Amino acid sequence: MANITKKVSWSSRGDESGGGERTPLLNGSEEVRYTRQFSGDGGMFHIGRLSTVDLEEDMTSDEDSVRGCPKEIPHNEKLLSLKYESLDYDNSENQLFLEEERRMSFLGFKCLEISRWVICGLIGFLTGLIACCIDIAVENLAGVKYFVVKQNIEKFTEVGGLSISLILWAVLNSAFVMVGAVIVAFFEPGAAGSGIPQIKCYLNGVKIPRVVRLKTLVVKVCGVICSVAGGLAVGKEGPMIHSGAVVAAGVSQGRSTSLKKDFKIFEYFRRDTEKRDFVSAGAAAGVSAAFGAPVGGVLFSLEEGASFWNQMLTWRIFFASMISTFTLNFFLSIYNKKPGDLSSPGLINFGRFESDSVAYNLYEIPLFIVMGAVGGLLGALFNILNYWLTIFRIRYVHRPCLQVMEAMLVAAVTATVSFAMIYFSNDCQPLGPDQSEDYPLQLFCADGEYNSMATAFFNTPERSVRSLFHNPPGSYNPLTLSLFTLTYFFLACWTYGLTVSAGVFIPSLLIGAAWGRLFGILLASITPNGSIWADPGKYALIGAAAQLGGIVRMTLSLTVIMVEATGNVTYGLPIMLVLLTAKIVGDYFVEGLYDIHIKLQSVPFLHLEAPATSHWLTAREVMGAPVTCFNRIEKVGTIVDVLSNTSTNHNGFPVVVPVAASDDMGKICGLILRSQLIVLLKHKVFVELARSRLTQRKLQLKDFRDAYPRFPPIQSIHVSQDERECMMDLTEFMNPTPYTVPQETSLPRVFKLFRALGLRHLVVVDSENRVVGLVTRKDLARYHMGKHGLEEMQLAQT
Amino acid sequence: MANITKKVSWSSRGDESGGGERTPLLNGSEEVRYTRQFSGDGGMFHIGRLSTVDLEEDMTSDEDSVRGCPKEIPHNEKLLSLKYESLDYDNSENQLFLEEERRMSFLGFKCLEISRWVICGLIGFLTGLIACCIDIAVENLAGVKYFVVKQNIEKFTEVGGLSISLILWAVLNSAFVMVGAVIVAFFEPGAAGSGIPQIKCYLNGVKIPRVVRLKTLVVKVCGVICSVAGGLAVGKEGPMIHSGAVVAAGVSQGRSTSLKKDFKIFEYFRRDTEKRDFVSAGAAAGVSAAFGAPVGGVLFSLEEGASFWNQMLTWRIFFASMISTFTLNFFLSIYNKKPGDLSSPGLINFGRFESDSVAYNLYEIPLFIVMGAVGGLLGALFNILNYWLTIFRIRYVHRPCLQVMEAMLVAAVTATVSFAMIYFSNDCQPLGPDQSEDYPLQLFCADGEYNSMATAFFNTPERSVRSLFHNPPGSYNPLTLSLFTLTYFFLACWTYGLTVSAGVFIPSLLIGAAWGRLFGILLASITPNGSIWADPGKYALIGAAAQLGGIVRMTLSLTVIMVEATGNVTYGLPIMLVLLTAKIVGDYFVEGLYDIHIKLQSVPFLHLEAPATSHWLTAREVMGAPVTCFNRIEKVGTIVDVLSNTSTNHNGFPVVVPVAASDDMGKICGLILRSQLIVLLKHKVFVELARSRLTQRKLQLKDFRDAYPRFPPIQSIHVSQDERECMMDLTEFMNPTPYTVPQETSLPRVFKLFRALGLRHLVVVDSENRVVGLVTRKDLARYHMGKHGLEEMQLAQT
Repeated sequence: MANITKKVSWSSRGDESGGGERTPLLNGSEEVRYTRQFSGDGGMFHIGRLSTVDLEEDMTSDEDSVRGCPKEIPHNEKLLSLKYESLDYDNSENQLFLEEERRMSFLGFKCLEISRWVICGLIGFLTGLIACCIDIAVENLAGVKYFVVKQNIEKFTEVGGLSISLILWAVLNSAFVMVGAVIVAFFEPGAAGSGIPQIKCYLNGVKIPRVVRLKTLVVKVCGVICSVAGGLAVGKEGPMIHSGAVVAAGVSQGRSTSLKKDFKIFEYFRRDTEKRDFVSAGAAAGVSAAFGAPVGGVLFSLEEGASFWNQMLTWRIFFASMISTFTLNFFLSIYNKKPGDLSSPGLINFGRFESDSVAYNLYEIPLFIVMGAVGGLLGALFNILNYWLTIFRIRYVHRPCLQVMEAMLVAAVTATVSFAMIYFSNDCQPLGPDQSEDYPLQLFCADGEYNSMATAFFNTPERSVRSLFHNPPGSYNPLTLSLFTLTYFFLACWTYGLTVSAGVFIPSLLIGAAWGRLFGILLASITPNGSIWADPGKYALIGAAAQLGGIVRMTLSLTVIMVEATGNVTYGLPIMLVLLTAKIVGDYFVEGLYDIHIKLQSVPFLHLEAPATSHWLTAREVMGAPVTCFNRIEKVGTIVDVLSNTSTNHNGFPVVVPVAASDDMGKICGLILRSQLIVLLKHKVFVELARSRLTQRKLQLKDFRDAYPRFPPIQSIHVSQDERECMMDLTEFMNPTPYTVPQETSLPRVFKLFRALGLRHLVVVDSENRVVGLVTRKDLARYHMGKHGLEEMQLAQT
Repeated sequence: MANITKKVSWSSRGDESGGGERTPLLNGSEEVRYTRQFSGDGGMFHIGRLSTVDLEEDMTSDEDSVRGCPKEIPHNEKLLSLKYESLDYDNSENQLFLEEERRMSFLGFKCLEISRWVICGLIGFLTGLIACCIDIAVENLAGVKYFVVKQNIEKFTEVGGLSISLILWAVLNSAFVMVGAVIVAFFEPGAAGSGIPQIKCYLNGVKIPRVVRLKTLVVKVCGVICSVAGGLAVGKEGPMIHSGAVVAAGVSQGRSTSLKKDFKIFEYFRRDTEKRDFVSAGAAAGVSAAFGAPVGGVLFSLEEGASFWNQMLTWRIFFASMISTFTLNFFLSIYNKKPGDLSSPGLINFGRFESDSVAYNLYEIPLFIVMGAVGGLLGALFNILNYWLTIFRIRYVHRPCLQVMEAMLVAAVTATVSFAMIYFSNDCQPLGPDQSEDYPLQLFCADGEYNSMATAFFNTPERSVRSLFHNPPGSYNPLTLSLFTLTYFFLACWTYGLTVSAGVFIPSLLIGAAWGRLFGILLASITPNGSIWADPGKYALIGAAAQLGGIVRMTLSLTVIMVEATGNVTYGLPIMLVLLTAKIVGDYFVEGLYDIHIKLQSVPFLHLEAPATSHWLTAREVMGAPVTCFNRIEKVGTIVDVLSNTSTNHNGFPVVVPVAASDDMGKICGLILRSQLIVLLKHKVFVELARSRLTQRKLQLKDFRDAYPRFPPIQSIHVSQDERECMMDLTEFMNPTPYTVPQETSLPRVFKLFRALGLRHLVVVDSENRVVGLVTRKDLARYHMGKHGLEEMQLAQT
């Protein structure tokens, strides 16, 4: 019956997320490799199979090759990993699904709609609550730490022996960071970093393992508290986005697989389509709580994720964002003993920018654009340095204990450098009556004065940013700012990518604010009439935007986030121009930081459009072929064998009707997923050949939902030899109307269809509707614009 | 050769925008009509053809039927008109297109990208400039008018004879309005109203005739100046959106067909896909200039139009919006002799809401929600009244001179009512030192006092809104506000839908601000400790949001527009809650005002999703069939005959390959549009049968672009009898890979594909890839959720 299933053995480079292959092993051992170099107009074009000799030469000379040195560089930006699965944004409209939808009344749909709103409200509430907990914990821990160190410093300033203070500070920092690094490195490595690249991938449709688990959330929250309290050059804002996403993925499913607790609610939402919508809402709620920017949160989610704009979904996302920022604000106002005061909507508060005092003039716009360019340059430098560092870490720092040690080292160095900077600084400022410093360090300053360098270093980064924005002109001297920028730049660059939970937003803002303020001070000093440049805080804000834009390269959403965080719409245009310039300048050199890290993970990330010059590529050239297909009624043994084949590990299989009197591929009549087959095998939905049909429990959608999302591996399902001879009727379970394209379809057209509908598998058919290939995510993500035109990436199993 | 073309004669209800038919006339004269009523669970389901007797009974009893009384109600919300064509957001990737794309270098694509940015900048600049002109013209004309009337009133207050002032006022108003109404009614009826429903339709993908012409823009701008200066209860903000869209459609094409001027630039953008993107940018720039809300503008465009979210496009739209508000602000600052002052970014300026003075408290949120509900109720009432009025107008006021007379009548009545209200009001307020009134009317008040009613009525609506928001507590007494709300509500309701260019945003805000302020005053009077409710301006703002939300039912974009217009992020949450409540309450009774007017025009508007309970409908039931197809090489005579058939007027034709030894439909191999065929016929791209092939000019994409968008009608193309015998080879020009779906595809799935890709024609094929039907916009727009479940609308040629 499996006459269409091609049982040749495949290359180990076979596709993981679909039933298509790139490179069948024609004689069983020969390895074939394509290299392609093409460019648009006038460029060279070379396609073909290299001979074995060529190949070997190539392998030895090309260090980046998969097989060349796979141990040394498991992550490589010129590869696409096949280990990532896709999310399926396209509902499998099989008979079970259609029956359920038909049974559902109009009222039923209304109830679902209300559930969605309730879930979004809950997501917002819990995200806000988590943000609030993080904020309070960090404030208290950091407060205790700075209090102890400050007392110690004051004690030893007079009598000498400040090295003891330094040691105390460094030990305290390292201790905090050690806790944070240990839980991340040993318990949940997925909680490392800001989580924004992971969430970007998830919203893009890539299933990153363990990214939305409860354990990840717990480790993330504890980790971020430790690393911020430990004085690293990090922020607690980025991780909020990840936290929001995990909350959303948990709440929307109405159960926790980790806690083995099923509340039996929201069962309808147990599928990729719905879950991804909620995760978008969670990410938006996270942004909203982090920056007090609900609109910015919505735009972030849309920019990263939702390829298909849906008004109701957007509105719900906005609702979650609003609830999130409101919850945070409300609980913080109670904590701060000013209940009802709604003036701190986010974790980072830029403080009030009054339009009158800091309005900009038209002739300042060219200056802002110059600052944008500087931000782009510095951002590119940051990214390149961090890229090298990450490569180094991947090669040499991959054991957990090494990672913990590196984190502790960074913490100690941060404390030491900070201490040295404060110690050698002689920038004393008078303590004003409206003193906003929380831990003013007098050190060697005269009485009634404090060390200005300490406001930048001896403080949580959020407070330092606010001081740079709002302290009156003259609070910092230029040397302090230059030194601070320089040291903090390298510290932040070293810190990003450590095995701790931490974000890069705040350090970027801090670096930018420092050189922006410096820029403002210098401007004021070189212009004859200093009064018009009187407010360096304005330049600090623009510098912060430029630096952040130069590093992360977000566009619309970042503009709105910055505008909302300043609470002043007037700055919209300059911030937009600055971000635009920073992006253009930065993109000239290197990609954004998140994109670099995504590439280093070899994630098959789909950009918004196919590369511009790819119109001449067709589905035939792009698709994986031949395809493993099943018949409508297929032998259980065949199915088990195909699923067990670890070298292919396909996830989707076209279902075909054999064409009479032909040994060719069959006509497409459906598409079935590995996960569905697993559930069918588990419930033994077999038809025995001898008897007409076994009386068996009718399978329902509920059975598929219960298994979602952690479907058991095929190895855990025991199928007896007798059962192997049974047949399985796939008709009821397959998606009977998968999207198909003809072979001649151009790549941009395939790309558009794939991206707009959030597909996982796209079947390529010939004019007779026979299956000739399958397009999956990695087939589209492989092509990208390189320096010399269109380039194709290698695929790797790692 | 045309063996597949079905040459039966069709019903006059045939589809206009596609090659598919709903109801073939099986015996030439019998008219068949479907009625369907279905509901989800447990409802009744009835589908079938009514017998002729049933039909006649039905026709006499059912006034709304198409054929029942088509003369009386040419517009009907239960019909879908077939006169509207679709825009095609899907590129026709024929050989010419692919060749051009292949020839283009990477640099070429970069240049195109830069052109797009330049165009967006231009769109923003011109839109801002137009907004500036409108603002200055209105200010001056209204200023002169109010000055003259004020002098007259002051002259006659002492000596008596104020009826002369009344007449002067009414005559001035009517004169302005007459000019505005005459140009709209006689020269360009498409410029009537705010234009927002039309732009919504355009962005949705419906080609509304004449909506983006230069003439429409000129009439719109002059019309809106006249109607606002004429004292009607209208605003100049809504029309800005339409103006921006027209600017975009013109600039992006690099030529004006009206002025017969082709600049030979931007030729690449002469197709629906690109044009629609630019029109989105134009609409956003319009919103941005109107409200000083660039982010709100972007969200408006996205909410209404872009089904496929594209980051670069969004970013460009944002750029256009920013430039637009900046241009307006810059020129207004020069006009106001404060160059460089960037504090008036929009046509309407809500004034400064300082967060300290008007911060809200948690316990006020329930009050805001109540206000939202009131706004929803009043909005629904407004919409229902306006709906009846519109039906009345459609039936009885359809001649231009009647329309002009109605507009003049409304102008005179507005003046009379305003005068009466001011005359009988005895709400005198002292003239403060910081007098913000431009035309304080003393009338019968004591010296040093002014008539409070006059600040609301004797003023442009924008200034009245600002007074209601910001005048100190006590500026208005409750009676004044109640009377004002009542009269202005009915005036605004009567005014919307007149044959003048005018928007409904400002009147809605004004009504809402009035009752919101009243609400605030009443609250302050009933609470013992009045101080916490001290600022009625806050309630005026919330009331304005509620009323506007209740009328137009926009969601996210309106929230952001309101927040940006107030310039204060703090109000985000209450405004969102208010708009949400207003929408829920309002939707319970009736749709939003724009949707009502779109329905009354019988536009096939596609909502974001298929109706919830439509999963059981399949493509087979939805599609139009049989389909008029062409062969790859088709006889010219056949093509001309099919195109000339006025009863069908198809716009897209599948191209098929005949199946050997079968009289059945052929296999799909492409899709060609009417417009393409017209160009081919015009350029006589024929192959004569006698000779092998004529030497002829090779057709290029340029020829299609030159004809875009006003392709000549088939009647204007002369084809001789000899030429009719020639053949035409469509291979090169057809889209070789149109999207197809199998017959069993469910309606939501078809809908999603159609909507996400912005298709115009979707071919339905059987398992052999033979064409069995064609789905076009009207096939999907027909289904909607009614009171009793899913309902199907009738199609009509009108």
